[in-house]
Amino acid sequence: MMTIKVAVNGYGVIGKRVADAVRAMPDMELVGVADVATDWRIRTAVGLGIEVFAATPDAGTAMRAGGVPVAGTLEDLLDRVDVVVDTTPKKVAARNLEVYKAAGVKAVFQGGESHATTGHSFVAQANYATALGRDTTRVVSCNTTSIVRVLGALQDAGLLARARGVLIRRATDPGESHQGGIMNTVVPEASIPSHQGPDARTVLPDLDVVTMAAKAAHTQTHNHYWTLQLTRPSSREEVLDALRAAPRIGFIRMADGLTALNTTVELMRDLGRPRGDMWEVAVWEDVLTVEGDEAFLTYQVYNEAIVVPETVDAIRALAGTVTDGATSIAMTDEVLGMRREFLPDPVGALRA
Amino acid sequence: MMTIKVAVNGYGVIGKRVADAVRAMPDMELVGVADVATDWRIRTAVGLGIEVFAATPDAGTAMRAGGVPVAGTLEDLLDRVDVVVDTTPKKVAARNLEVYKAAGVKAVFQGGESHATTGHSFVAQANYATALGRDTTRVVSCNTTSIVRVLGALQDAGLLARARGVLIRRATDPGESHQGGIMNTVVPEASIPSHQGPDARTVLPDLDVVTMAAKAAHTQTHNHYWTLQLTRPSSREEVLDALRAAPRIGFIRMADGLTALNTTVELMRDLGRPRGDMWEVAVWEDVLTVEGDEAFLTYQVYNEAIVVPETVDAIRALAGTVTDGATSIAMTDEVLGMRREFLPDPVGALRA
Repeated sequence: MMTIKVAVNGYGVIGKRVADAVRAMPDMELVGVADVATDWRIRTAVGLGIEVFAATPDAGTAMRAGGVPVAGTLEDLLDRVDVVVDTTPKKVAARNLEVYKAAGVKAVFQGGESHATTGHSFVAQANYATALGRDTTRVVSCNTTSIVRVLGALQDAGLLARARGVLIRRATDPGESHQGGIMNTVVPEASIPSHQGPDARTVLPDLDVVTMAAKAAHTQTHNHYWTLQLTRPSSREEVLDALRAAPRIGFIRMADGLTALNTTVELMRDLGRPRGDMWEVAVWEDVLTVEGDEAFLTYQVYNEAIVVPETVDAIRALAGTVTDGATSIAMTDEVLGMRREFLPDPVGALRA
Repeated sequence: MMTIKVAVNGYGVIGKRVADAVRAMPDMELVGVADVATDWRIRTAVGLGIEVFAATPDAGTAMRAGGVPVAGTLEDLLDRVDVVVDTTPKKVAARNLEVYKAAGVKAVFQGGESHATTGHSFVAQANYATALGRDTTRVVSCNTTSIVRVLGALQDAGLLARARGVLIRRATDPGESHQGGIMNTVVPEASIPSHQGPDARTVLPDLDVVTMAAKAAHTQTHNHYWTLQLTRPSSREEVLDALRAAPRIGFIRMADGLTALNTTVELMRDLGRPRGDMWEVAVWEDVLTVEGDEAFLTYQVYNEAIVVPETVDAIRALAGTVTDGATSIAMTDEVLGMRREFLPDPVGALRA
């Protein structure tokens, strides 16, 4: 299989995780990363033996002055790759699009950008095929990715008529919680619907979904609560089977002592995962309730990590090296160590 | 008008507020409070000139030893009153019921007790009349009170078919947040429905309501998110008019900079309210959205205070001194200073 040469532009929360994932994939080579940082963040990449490029000429001067060995410019990096993953901050990425086009490099953007920037939004299990061979796509945000995975699974099973959700978001990421965080409050989003519902329709156009959102005073992972109108009376087992039929949905249980967001976060650390990441959407199996033709459920979204496998698949889809989405998903998930269950003999699995 | 002689048993988060409210009512007299505490909590009452009684003989000994002047036993206090408000911790109150019965004193319990303890659950605007002259009633919990106020208003207007809610609860109260709090996480309630939905039906039996709940890492006020199926297509103004027709619902607005729970808490402090309390349910007027036959809204519940006016009305209902609920509500609300709007010329009121 041809090796896909990849660049990552923006070595932040998502970029550094994508860089690691790309390095782990047997069919990919991380040629280098570009950034403008001069501090510990980019010097960590240097320490890992990753070639570092300056995203702008000014940044290059500052980086060299700060002791960061700079291998060249963004353009130099682009000359050497097939696909660039743009994980720069919101608004920067849209400007970068022209640079990538001029260099003839395919580009994967992230959910901070608008759908219009690429004209294609991506969640591997939903629409890998339509991204095949395209020049650009946008991996939707962490919240939207989780919505498409879970609601998409129920839609695929013919079970979902309508979804109404409340998203309790983390206030900010751990590495940024010394600035711009919130304490001892909840901040409701000022408008309904919040953007995640409409955003999910960029991938699943037929979804009848409305979301309300709020930020709470914690730093790791989002927590969604859904009221689902089903197409007909159903059962817990049927709904769970529909979720089990889809990739990248894991199950956790109150009965296992996984009773709050922090317990799952701690479990991921204990499982030895890089940075304690959880790439799965973690559905509380024993909280999920079906009453007649309604289902109620809650799940946890590891916002720093969930889009990483999607980004890996998006690289393959643009490169066109793997034409079948399920094959790409399986390759990615095996390398990362994605799981359906996190514990041996889980209570729920034994019951099932 | 006859003065109702009132005792408060349990000088905690609710009890101390009820004691103050009773002292402020022209038709009530606070004869005394009973407790078992020996520290600053009960000594504050002493400093306010409130007569303090020992809830148990052992407590009396300890209180006297701790320098708390004790006026007598709970039985002594009960001898002198018409109505006792039981604000003791969960499970203690149910045992107290027999004591109150033996003393021939009417009793108002709080939402920590089960409906079965009294056979009657109370929210003034919904069912004042059915409590008239009864020996006991139970003022439902803060969350349930807010649900009955808001959903009851829409039901009264013939607008509500079905309500599905998510409750983001405060982790613990400010005065107890040095113990039993949570930090940097969200704790989902393990079962669906959470108890508040069914509890609301103890007051409004016809309500079609399901609630999911979670505790977040903050100490003041709950935040509810509702998806409401209306009986027919409606409009924002019609839904707001239905809320305006009910008592004890206030309006706040993102446009006024009231953008998070803490901002409303600060506003209540700035308004000079005792302890910064908010007795109203505060609906975000400019977030409320109506789409066809669905309404979406969020409101804030000041859990330490919202049941205080209900408790005052419950005292009157049991005493039977005021037979009309609306009259009692108006009396209570005028004395407390309850408001529909918290700011002069609010943006939304001008728009309306």
